[in-house]
Amino acid sequence: MPLKSYISYSSESHFPLENLPYGVFSTVDDSTHRIGVAIGDKILDLKYSKNVFDYPLCEIFQQPSLQSLMASNKETWSQARKSIQSYLSIEHSENLKNGVFWDQNEVQMHLPTSIGGYTDFFSSYYHAYNCGTLLSPNKPIADNWRNMPVAYHGRTSSFRISGTPVVRPSGQYLKDGEVTFGPTEMLDYELEVAFFVGGTLNSLNEPIPISKASDYIFGMVLLNDWSARDVQLWESPFLGPFLSKNFITTISPWVVTMEALEEFKTDNFKQDPAPLKYLQHDIKYNFDIHLNASIYGPKSPQTHVICNSNYKYMYWTPIQQIAHHTVTGCDLKPGDLLSSGTISGPEENQRACLVERNLLGKKLIDLGDRKLKFFEDGDEVTISGFCQGNGYKIGFGNCVSKILPAK
Amino acid sequence: MPLKSYISYSSESHFPLENLPYGVFSTVDDSTHRIGVAIGDKILDLKYSKNVFDYPLCEIFQQPSLQSLMASNKETWSQARKSIQSYLSIEHSENLKNGVFWDQNEVQMHLPTSIGGYTDFFSSYYHAYNCGTLLSPNKPIADNWRNMPVAYHGRTSSFRISGTPVVRPSGQYLKDGEVTFGPTEMLDYELEVAFFVGGTLNSLNEPIPISKASDYIFGMVLLNDWSARDVQLWESPFLGPFLSKNFITTISPWVVTMEALEEFKTDNFKQDPAPLKYLQHDIKYNFDIHLNASIYGPKSPQTHVICNSNYKYMYWTPIQQIAHHTVTGCDLKPGDLLSSGTISGPEENQRACLVERNLLGKKLIDLGDRKLKFFEDGDEVTISGFCQGNGYKIGFGNCVSKILPAK
Repeated sequence: MPLKSYISYSSESHFPLENLPYGVFSTVDDSTHRIGVAIGDKILDLKYSKNVFDYPLCEIFQQPSLQSLMASNKETWSQARKSIQSYLSIEHSENLKNGVFWDQNEVQMHLPTSIGGYTDFFSSYYHAYNCGTLLSPNKPIADNWRNMPVAYHGRTSSFRISGTPVVRPSGQYLKDGEVTFGPTEMLDYELEVAFFVGGTLNSLNEPIPISKASDYIFGMVLLNDWSARDVQLWESPFLGPFLSKNFITTISPWVVTMEALEEFKTDNFKQDPAPLKYLQHDIKYNFDIHLNASIYGPKSPQTHVICNSNYKYMYWTPIQQIAHHTVTGCDLKPGDLLSSGTISGPEENQRACLVERNLLGKKLIDLGDRKLKFFEDGDEVTISGFCQGNGYKIGFGNCVSKILPAK
Repeated sequence: MPLKSYISYSSESHFPLENLPYGVFSTVDDSTHRIGVAIGDKILDLKYSKNVFDYPLCEIFQQPSLQSLMASNKETWSQARKSIQSYLSIEHSENLKNGVFWDQNEVQMHLPTSIGGYTDFFSSYYHAYNCGTLLSPNKPIADNWRNMPVAYHGRTSSFRISGTPVVRPSGQYLKDGEVTFGPTEMLDYELEVAFFVGGTLNSLNEPIPISKASDYIFGMVLLNDWSARDVQLWESPFLGPFLSKNFITTISPWVVTMEALEEFKTDNFKQDPAPLKYLQHDIKYNFDIHLNASIYGPKSPQTHVICNSNYKYMYWTPIQQIAHHTVTGCDLKPGDLLSSGTISGPEENQRACLVERNLLGKKLIDLGDRKLKFFEDGDEVTISGFCQGNGYKIGFGNCVSKILPAK
């Protein structure tokens, strides 16, 4: 039986009482950034709940970002969830008057925290296989990939919240074999799910053992890793992607906690060969999260779904990613964001970026009344995701971006 | 004629009145982080100079890091230099009593600012050539390398100040063809020079034109890009270096300003082919900075110089690096650190990391009474650098690290 709040919403809502994701927002008449919790189509404003929550939550909820909450610990995260669930439950319907609520469509959402470090993994088997097939068909899956969660460090300054337009970047690439400068002709998305780490994390030279790694995962967001493929193909040899990925990275505004996702744990992807000991774990740490991407744009009056995938296609788990990230001694900080990489499934329509479907631009993607190669100016790209519970959804909301022409 | 201060120092000092680099330090009896300026063997403590400097310096100098100074602008940087130079000059010898000075060897130095973003370039021709020769002998210099300053994003959390020990990291690598976990057997350094950016930098989607780029360079430090080569060789294919570089990165504590370096500008490296227009500049923006590295360790009672190089071997200039970094729209922030990559010269003893000299571990480096392959536990590695003026040096001081055994 789904839980019941005095705020009403349908069983299709992404934000029932079972979810309670955190976000940072401001309103027209109060531009301070503050923490809110999504419930149905509403937001509970935690800034105006000073005398409602016990210490340390009463202080943490007054902050302008989720940094303090992330920096606390698992027990505090749990206490927060319990307190908010109780405050919003039908048994406490007096709080409809006591609390301050906003419509989600009347606020401005912001990044939930200043992201100190961003690491992008490459952890979905089918994405690795499809990219490998395009770039080194004789050996689609590299030897290192099967033995470790391969990753690279990304840029944090260019993170933006859902709704921020993507201006088509201009850069250097090869065109007909010539070195050229111009607007990218291969603008692509990547459907990813990222998690924020938190808690009292490790010091330098102190790896986090995989058995403890789950204690440090605060919650998850959708991430669109915008990519200029022509720039990427030209710049990447030797040191990996740089400008092709750092012009904007977009995340969804609501951070879904690991407690909300707990009941959607599913079997880990079978790993062959067995990883080295520091990457081995017995516990389930994979999640059944439905993911999809769609476009809407001037070329066609209707919305087209361009991908239907699922988080469960992750080969490497988040706790393997943490254990690997810290194994040589790198220190993680609360608010660091670790992303999955493109999460593709085995089917054609589960390929979660355009190059996997258009074979590096060699083929048109047939969407019925529209044939798509890469995104065009005016296209609006939406990624979304949810877990299907019994009579409710644990949703991530949307991560939306409209593409504007090059400057 | 060298300038003269009431603080005395020799013509060999790295920190004469012509230099005046900034650093952040604390003392035994006052653990607050505060800004100081190096002069001879002393530090002028700017925290205790409240009524000495005009606005905005009086406020900027009270901060616990260089962040505000970096975030101001070129005119303020210039005003600061003039004011401090006057304050320390022999004409104002009364300030020997008025000012608060510390011995450099009695303080604790700290990172000059919290580094928001770190980008490591790969901009020295001879380093690229030597690495290329080892990894792809048929084509040592890749096509993209000649057309753009290739770079990758690095990790900021693991930055540490000179003096911090380097604990030998353990990680995953191939040993005799087998996937192995253990302490790195190929611990290496990279002698680099990095610059901090500052000023009112660009917004997202607004590239910095190369004609304006020099306005945003605050100053330079030495950087030791510690590398575990066995880990690097195994993990890098596809996305570049990750754990092999993020276990520690060390910088020297004194930030030498671009004004202090101005008179050491030298001809740019000849570029062939001519770069694309957004990377072209007529002005000189290369620097004659002598660089060296040495080791001292239990294997031999004497210090051995292992490299003598010079910044002038940079193929790509700092202003080309900034123009490139922002060309697809990435926004830079005050306090971001952009590094050169290993700066090697054309000669054997100018190779600025061990793998270039030991040919990926295949050859011993002959240092007379010591044959070196990679660093051993107990080795102390020092990198240093200076410009030679007429009767004085503009020095960077030292960046020192002692290697401790794996945990």
